[in-house]
Amino acid sequence: MPVGKESKVLPLRAIQIEDPFWSKEIDLVRRAVLPYQWRTLHDQVPGAAPSYCVHNFQAAARLTARQAEAGADFTPPSFTFRGFEVLPPDPDHPDPDSFYGFVFQDSDLYKWVEAVACALSQHPDPDLEEKADRLIDLVCSAQQPDGYLDTYYILGGLDAAFTNLRDHHELYCFGHLAEGAAAYWQATGKDKLLRAACRFADLIDERFRDDGGLQGYPGHEIAEMALFRLYEVTGEDRYRALAQRFLDRRGRRPYYFDTERNEPPAAPEELRYQYHQAHLPVREQTEAVGHAVRAMYLYSGMADSARLTGDDAMWAACRALWRDVTGRKMYVTGGVGSTVSGEAFTFAYDLPNDTAYSETCAAVGLVFFARRMLQAEPRAAYADVMERALYNGVLAGMSADGEKFFYVNPLEVRPDACERDPHKSHVQPERQPWFGCACCPPNLARLVMSVGQYAWTYNEDTLYVHLYLGGQIQVPASHGTVTVRAESELPRAGNYTIRFMQDCPEEFTLAVRIPHWCGEEYSVDSGKARRWEKDGYLYLRKRWKAGDTLEFRFWMSVRLITANPAVWEDAGKLCVTRGPLVYCLEEADNGPGLHLLRLNPYGFLHLEDREIAAGQTCVGVTAFGLRETASPAEPLYGLFRPSEMEPASLRFIPYYLWANRGRGEMRVWVAAMEGKPDPGRDILSLLKEGGFDL
Amino acid sequence: MPVGKESKVLPLRAIQIEDPFWSKEIDLVRRAVLPYQWRTLHDQVPGAAPSYCVHNFQAAARLTARQAEAGADFTPPSFTFRGFEVLPPDPDHPDPDSFYGFVFQDSDLYKWVEAVACALSQHPDPDLEEKADRLIDLVCSAQQPDGYLDTYYILGGLDAAFTNLRDHHELYCFGHLAEGAAAYWQATGKDKLLRAACRFADLIDERFRDDGGLQGYPGHEIAEMALFRLYEVTGEDRYRALAQRFLDRRGRRPYYFDTERNEPPAAPEELRYQYHQAHLPVREQTEAVGHAVRAMYLYSGMADSARLTGDDAMWAACRALWRDVTGRKMYVTGGVGSTVSGEAFTFAYDLPNDTAYSETCAAVGLVFFARRMLQAEPRAAYADVMERALYNGVLAGMSADGEKFFYVNPLEVRPDACERDPHKSHVQPERQPWFGCACCPPNLARLVMSVGQYAWTYNEDTLYVHLYLGGQIQVPASHGTVTVRAESELPRAGNYTIRFMQDCPEEFTLAVRIPHWCGEEYSVDSGKARRWEKDGYLYLRKRWKAGDTLEFRFWMSVRLITANPAVWEDAGKLCVTRGPLVYCLEEADNGPGLHLLRLNPYGFLHLEDREIAAGQTCVGVTAFGLRETASPAEPLYGLFRPSEMEPASLRFIPYYLWANRGRGEMRVWVAAMEGKPDPGRDILSLLKEGGFDL
Repeated sequence: MPVGKESKVLPLRAIQIEDPFWSKEIDLVRRAVLPYQWRTLHDQVPGAAPSYCVHNFQAAARLTARQAEAGADFTPPSFTFRGFEVLPPDPDHPDPDSFYGFVFQDSDLYKWVEAVACALSQHPDPDLEEKADRLIDLVCSAQQPDGYLDTYYILGGLDAAFTNLRDHHELYCFGHLAEGAAAYWQATGKDKLLRAACRFADLIDERFRDDGGLQGYPGHEIAEMALFRLYEVTGEDRYRALAQRFLDRRGRRPYYFDTERNEPPAAPEELRYQYHQAHLPVREQTEAVGHAVRAMYLYSGMADSARLTGDDAMWAACRALWRDVTGRKMYVTGGVGSTVSGEAFTFAYDLPNDTAYSETCAAVGLVFFARRMLQAEPRAAYADVMERALYNGVLAGMSADGEKFFYVNPLEVRPDACERDPHKSHVQPERQPWFGCACCPPNLARLVMSVGQYAWTYNEDTLYVHLYLGGQIQVPASHGTVTVRAESELPRAGNYTIRFMQDCPEEFTLAVRIPHWCGEEYSVDSGKARRWEKDGYLYLRKRWKAGDTLEFRFWMSVRLITANPAVWEDAGKLCVTRGPLVYCLEEADNGPGLHLLRLNPYGFLHLEDREIAAGQTCVGVTAFGLRETASPAEPLYGLFRPSEMEPASLRFIPYYLWANRGRGEMRVWVAAMEGKPDPGRDILSLLKEGGFDL
Repeated sequence: MPVGKESKVLPLRAIQIEDPFWSKEIDLVRRAVLPYQWRTLHDQVPGAAPSYCVHNFQAAARLTARQAEAGADFTPPSFTFRGFEVLPPDPDHPDPDSFYGFVFQDSDLYKWVEAVACALSQHPDPDLEEKADRLIDLVCSAQQPDGYLDTYYILGGLDAAFTNLRDHHELYCFGHLAEGAAAYWQATGKDKLLRAACRFADLIDERFRDDGGLQGYPGHEIAEMALFRLYEVTGEDRYRALAQRFLDRRGRRPYYFDTERNEPPAAPEELRYQYHQAHLPVREQTEAVGHAVRAMYLYSGMADSARLTGDDAMWAACRALWRDVTGRKMYVTGGVGSTVSGEAFTFAYDLPNDTAYSETCAAVGLVFFARRMLQAEPRAAYADVMERALYNGVLAGMSADGEKFFYVNPLEVRPDACERDPHKSHVQPERQPWFGCACCPPNLARLVMSVGQYAWTYNEDTLYVHLYLGGQIQVPASHGTVTVRAESELPRAGNYTIRFMQDCPEEFTLAVRIPHWCGEEYSVDSGKARRWEKDGYLYLRKRWKAGDTLEFRFWMSVRLITANPAVWEDAGKLCVTRGPLVYCLEEADNGPGLHLLRLNPYGFLHLEDREIAAGQTCVGVTAFGLRETASPAEPLYGLFRPSEMEPASLRFIPYYLWANRGRGEMRVWVAAMEGKPDPGRDILSLLKEGGFDL
C-alpha cells in the first residue's frame, strides 16, 4: 500500500467554517435539527411517537444507583427477549423502569452529542453545552461499575449481555458512544464522556480477548472505526488491537453468529452472512454485499486499519471493495443500497431508480469510507465520490427548513406509485418529520456539522484540500501551525481561493484536488511555488508568506451524464449535473408525466437563479427538448404511429433540493432525444425550437 | 342492458376440435399434463413435494365411513387452526387421518376432473375415464350425510365449518366441485359427481339462507359463477338465487368478514376489503381492485348474473369494471395483476414489466370474464381481449412439452435480477415442474381443454364465432341442430373457413367476429346471404345449404404496438404483434443485453418459420434496428457522447413460447429508434443496414 502519504483529520477546534453554502446547512442543523432532536430524545414532540431514549437512560441510572446502594443484596433483572423494538403495552403509562424503543435506541443520544460537539466548535452556545453536559452526566450515571453501558441490557438483564451480537446492537451503540465522546472532548476539552467510553472499551477489550474471551464481532459494524478513532484520540494501542480483532474474526468458520446462542440459523448461509459482511474474511472480500450501511461502516474500519497498520492485504481488499461499490453499485447521487429488502446491495449495475433504497445513512457511510481511503492515499477519485455523496445523497436527506428528513432516497418518484404499489411503499414522496427507526437524521446532522473534517486532511508536511469549503483552519505542521483561510463560491461557481495567514518558516505543500467535473479545465496562478500534478491533485510547494493567495477557477459547466450501458434502468437516458450537483426534474416545474419528456443533448442550456424555499436559492438549469403529448382518451394499446411531440423546456433543480414544494413527481434520469448533433443550427432557432420565451 | 342477444355455451359433447394449433395444445394437456397431475394428486411424483390431495379424500372417506358405522357414538374431531398450509411434522410419516396441504387443496382434484371431462369429450379414453370414476367415487364417499364436502373441515373439525369464509376456501372448493361435476356430466352423461355437488349446494343454500342463515359470501370467489353453471345445467333456480345472494351481500356493513369470528380485523379497512372485492356492493364497484384472480372470478359471476337476470345496474357495473381492467390495468399479453403483494391490481396504467405478477390463473379468469361479457353482448372488443389473454397470458403458462409451468408471467426478465433482487424473486426465469400452491397448471389445463366453449356461443337463431378454431360443432338451434365444420390456419395465417354440413330448414345467422388485428382488412364471399356488421361482428343470414362455405381471409401483418403514454414503463417502447400473438425478444436469439437494442419502426420486417422446441414451430419475426455497443471497461458514469450503435437484427418469437430454451433474458417492450420514416430507401439498403444476411 502507498506509504508516507497518510493524512490525518483536523481537530474540530482547528476548523472554522465560513462558507455561503455550508454555513447555511450547518446553521440549519444547529438551529432546527439539534433542538428538535433534543426534544425528540426527551419525548417532548407533541404528536410524534416517543423515542424513550432519555427515559431509558434515566431508568438505567436509577437501577445502577439502586444496585450501588443495595450491594450484594441487589437482584438484577433477568433477561427475556421482548423484541427488537419494545413498546409499552399502554402507551400513556410506560413503566418507568423498562426499556423501550429499538435495541439501538441509545445511539440516538450519542449521535446528538457528536453533532452538538461539532456545533460548539463552530459556534459557542452555553445553553446547548449545558444541555449536552446534563445528558452526558445522565449517561455516565447509568454506566455499570464494570464499565458496561447499554440501557437495553442494563434494564433488560445483564445476564444476556453480549449473547446476541448478530441482531442486537450493543457494540454498535458503543461505537456511537465512542464517536460522540471523542468529538465532545475534541470540541470542548471535557473528558467525562470520553472516560466513560474508554471504560466501556476496556470492558469490551477484556470480554472479547483472544484467549478465553468471546470470539465475536459486531453484527452492525461501527465499533471498528470508532475504536480506531479512540486509539487516535487517546493513543491507547489496546483500542487499535481490539478493532483489529473485530476485523480479523469476520468470516471465520464456524460462523460466530451461528454458535453464540443455541438457536437454529434463520436464513440460508450465504444470505445470513452476506447481510452482516461476515461471509468471508475481510481480506478476501472483493464485492460489496448485504446491508449497505453496515458495509460502509465496515469498509471504513478496514481503511482505517490499512492506513494505521500498513497491511497490504487489507488495503487491497479496501481498493477492491471501493471499485465494486463506486464502479458498479453506486447511484449517480452517491447513494448505495439498491433494494429495501435487507436495505442492501444487490448485484453489479442493478440500480433501479424508482425502487431504490439508497438510505441517507448509507450515503453518509460512503463519505466515511471515501475520506478514509483519501487519508490512506490522496487520489481525487475518492474525493470525487465523497463530494458526489455529500452534495447529493446526503444533503437530499434533509428539507430546506431542516425540519423533515428522507430515510430512503429514490431517483424517480411517482407519488401515486409510492402509495398504491406495495413494491414502492418504502419510498416516501415527501420528507417525514421523524422516523421510528431514527438513524438517518442524527447521522446526517453529525456529518454536516463536521464537514470540515472531510474537506481537509493533513500530515506534517502537507495540507490536502479535498472539498472546496470556505473557512479558516489551523494545520498542525511539523514546523508549527499553518493557518489558511479559504473562500469558496461552490456549488454556485467554481471559484475557490486560499490565503496563507502567516509566514511559514519552512516549505510546506498544499495539495488541491482537481475536480473531475471541471474536465481538467482550471486555472491558478501559483507564482513561484513548485507545482506538479499527481492522482488528480495539484501540489504546490514553497515557503509561503502571509498573504500568499491562490485563486482557483474550476470550469463549471452543465455536464450531461450517461450511465454505463450495463445499467438497464438508465439505458437511453441522461442525467444533468453541474459541478458537484446532480440535477432532477420536478413536477412543480415541469407538470406531471416526467416520463414523457425527452432531453435534447445538443440543445441550448440556460442557467438561472432560483429560490426553491425561503433562503434556499440555487442555480437552476433549463434544457430543451420535446414532450410526448398524451391524451387520456387514447386506448391502452394502439398501433404505432410517430409520437406526437411538442417542444418543451425541461427545468431542472439540484437533486438535494427536491421535495421542498409539496408532493409531486421527480426524476433524475431523463429520456434522451436520439439523433445527430446539428452544429449548423444557430442559438436563436434552438431557443425557438425549445419553446423558450425570447 | 342489451336484451335478446344473450348466447349460450355449447355442450362439451357438441364440440370436436380439429385444429393445427389447438389440437396440439389439447394433446399436450391430454398426454402430458393430465397424467402428470394425476400422479401429483396421488403423491407419486418422485422428488416433488406431496400434494396430499387424494390422501385427504381417503382420510375423509374413512372418517365418514366410521361416522356412519358408529352413529350417535361417533365423536367428531374438534377444530384447531393449524395454518393455511398444513404440513406433517415428519414428512416421511404423515398421519393417515390428518389433512395436509393448503386449505384449498381439494380444488386440485376437481380441476383435474374438469379437464378430464373435456378431454373425454374430445377423445375417448377408457383408462382415463376409469381413473376419473374412481376419484369421483372417492370424493363421494368422503361426503358427509348432510352433503358437506370439504376435507379440511371434515378431518379438522366440522364444528368450525363456514366460520372463516374470509381466509379459508370451502366455498371456493365447492365452486370447483360444481364446475368439475357439471363438465363431467356434460362430457360423459355420468351424474354421480353432479349429484354430490348439488347435495353440497343444497346444504350451502340452507345454511346461507337470508332468514336466519349465515349472511356471508365467499372470500375467494368462484362459487358465484359455478352456481350459475349449476343452475344452467340443472335448471334448479335455488342455485341461481344462492349465487345472487352471494353477489348481493358483498360490501354490506358491518363487513361480514369482520363479524364472522371474534378476531380483530387484520388490516386497514380499505385494504382488507379491496383484497376480497368486498369493499363495496357489487353494483357500485367500478374499479378493479385486490387479488386479481378473485376479481376476475367475481366479475365473471356478475356477468352471468346480469345476463341471466337482465339486471341493468349489475350490467353497468360489469361494463365499468371491464373498461377499467382492459383499458387501464391489463398487460399487452392479457395478463392482469401488477404486483406480487396480494397478487393484486395496483392502479391505473401501473404496468411494470419486470416485477409483473400477471398470474396465469388471472389471465384464465380474464378469459372467463370476457366470454361472459360476450354471452351478454356480442361485441368484438370482448373477444379481442379474450383472444389476447388466451394466446399470450394463458398459453405462456405452460412449456412446449407440457411439463413445466409459470405461475407468474413477467414481460421482461433478467435471470440475475430474479435471483439476486428480492423485489423480483417472485419472478421465475424458467418454468417450474409444479408449485406448492398449484392453482395455475390445472386451471390452464381445464381452459385449454374446453377452448371450444370460448370459440363459439349460440342462441336459438345465431351461431357466434368469437375465436377462429377448426373443428366440427353441433348447434342446438330452434329449428334443429345446425352442424358446421371450421378450418383455421391461425395463428400462422388469417385464413378461416366455415362449411355448413347440413341444410338448414330455416334462416339462421352466422355472426363472425372481425378481429381487431386485421385492421378492418378482410374478405369473405358471402354469396346471397344477408350481410351486416355490428359491434365488430359480421352477420350473415340465410337458409344455409349443406356445403355452403365461407372463406374468410383476415389480413395478418406484423403490427407494432405502443402503449398509452400514461404507462411509465413502456414510454418510448414498441411491442411486436402478429395476429393474436404478442412477440418477445429472447437472449437465445439475440444475445444478452436486450435493453441495448433499438427497434426501427420503419424498417423491413422479415417472417420465417422457426422451431422453438420439438413439434413447436411458429412464425418468427425479424426486425431491424440498432444495438448500443457496451464495453464493460467503461466507467459507471461518464460524460454524454452519442451512443455507439451498430446495426442489429432483432429476432422475435411468440411470447407464449418464451423460456423453452433455457435460462436467459426476455423482453416484450423494446426501445424504439426515434426519427422520421424514410420512404425513399429501398428494401435492399434497409436489409443491408439491418445486418441481414443477403
